[in-house]
Amino acid sequence: MHHYRLDVEYDGTDFKGWQVQPDQRTVQGELEARLETLFRQPIRTTAAGRTDTGVHALGQVVSFSAPRLADPDELGKSLNGMLPQDVVIRSTSSADEAFNARFSATGRHYYYDIAYSERAISRRYVWMRRERLSTAALREASRHVLGEHDFTSFCVAARERESRVCDVRTCDWTERDDGLRLTISANRFVRSMVRSLVGTFVDIGRGFRGADEVPDILTACDRSSAGPTAPPQGLFLSRVDYD
Amino acid sequence: MHHYRLDVEYDGTDFKGWQVQPDQRTVQGELEARLETLFRQPIRTTAAGRTDTGVHALGQVVSFSAPRLADPDELGKSLNGMLPQDVVIRSTSSADEAFNARFSATGRHYYYDIAYSERAISRRYVWMRRERLSTAALREASRHVLGEHDFTSFCVAARERESRVCDVRTCDWTERDDGLRLTISANRFVRSMVRSLVGTFVDIGRGFRGADEVPDILTACDRSSAGPTAPPQGLFLSRVDYD
Repeated sequence: MHHYRLDVEYDGTDFKGWQVQPDQRTVQGELEARLETLFRQPIRTTAAGRTDTGVHALGQVVSFSAPRLADPDELGKSLNGMLPQDVVIRSTSSADEAFNARFSATGRHYYYDIAYSERAISRRYVWMRRERLSTAALREASRHVLGEHDFTSFCVAARERESRVCDVRTCDWTERDDGLRLTISANRFVRSMVRSLVGTFVDIGRGFRGADEVPDILTACDRSSAGPTAPPQGLFLSRVDYD
Repeated sequence: MHHYRLDVEYDGTDFKGWQVQPDQRTVQGELEARLETLFRQPIRTTAAGRTDTGVHALGQVVSFSAPRLADPDELGKSLNGMLPQDVVIRSTSSADEAFNARFSATGRHYYYDIAYSERAISRRYVWMRRERLSTAALREASRHVLGEHDFTSFCVAARERESRVCDVRTCDWTERDDGLRLTISANRFVRSMVRSLVGTFVDIGRGFRGADEVPDILTACDRSSAGPTAPPQGLFLSRVDYD
């Protein structure tokens, strides 16, 4: 068997997330169906980040094992010829036997876009919030999540056994053309973490809560202590790091 | 009667262009239907640029006359509440009686995006061209269309009586993240002019024709002397100027 790495971009709008689910259109489902056709056997893939319904990816990384192909470059071309337009293989390569897109990843990078006015062109890729937010308050709040913390308060439906400790390395807001972008990176993320953080930060940015409440929210280890979950369409998995 | 100006953004993907046509979904049709509901009478609108099927607008300008409303700011909010998601009123204002979005315009700005690789997120907004183009050749070709010329060679289905002379003020290519953007402005454009120019420029950028052929193509005043018409999804009407 040969080991493959795929770098994948997808528009999450019309997907029920990454992970295969019966009778649902998922990115993993679309991809594995094409791999099965190509390799004439079922292929099971692993992704660096199991993105939720409606979340986009510019730099998702996927690994799998399959029979050796004469030319791995042909794999990307063949897949792009078979895949629907909302999934694109950006690059393909051969990987080490030990490589696992999920467990070998040392860092994940996401961004989340907010727009201050209604948009037609980018409507599928931003959260529209009419009211201006305080960038200073957003930045102050964001600094409190840097470093290693238990993110149970920002985790939806965590399984009991799984650790919710993440090491957040960057978390900052930049002002963009009539809107804002949160960029955040960590060694790992728990389920819906970025969207729960964004929902909470936005409550702080609009003055509904104080930035200094963030440490207490973290300590509470209780989802109800944090703010609402922001909608998925503003969220992008932008990059995954490996050693 | 009162005179109104609307600044409009739309995603051209699912429209048969700006102009009303029977049994077709057009931007003008969608907009005029909502204006009729709002003002309780048929309203006829005029746009600065009658964009073709699939062409997008970030800064389309529309004018119309209608009864006076108490608060023109409410007009934009009401329309955005009624319009489909792929048309957004960016701003509304009261206009001078003499103002006509089309005939008062002194300049129009478009851009056209080309991507060198397949994309999932931006697939509706770029022309994907796998082969690299010579930016130097594209720039040289573009310089030849600057100034006042008869653009009959770059015009599809022009009516005989209508002048095809346009004064091109800027026409240049910039390299972007894995692609290129043409920005072009002129006092006016004839039908399909930007897309015909892009198709011809791309033939030049891939070495299929020489940049020095552009003056002869212009002089020929014959559509068949120029290159193919580029597809609509890369084209954006970005801004309209008024004195």
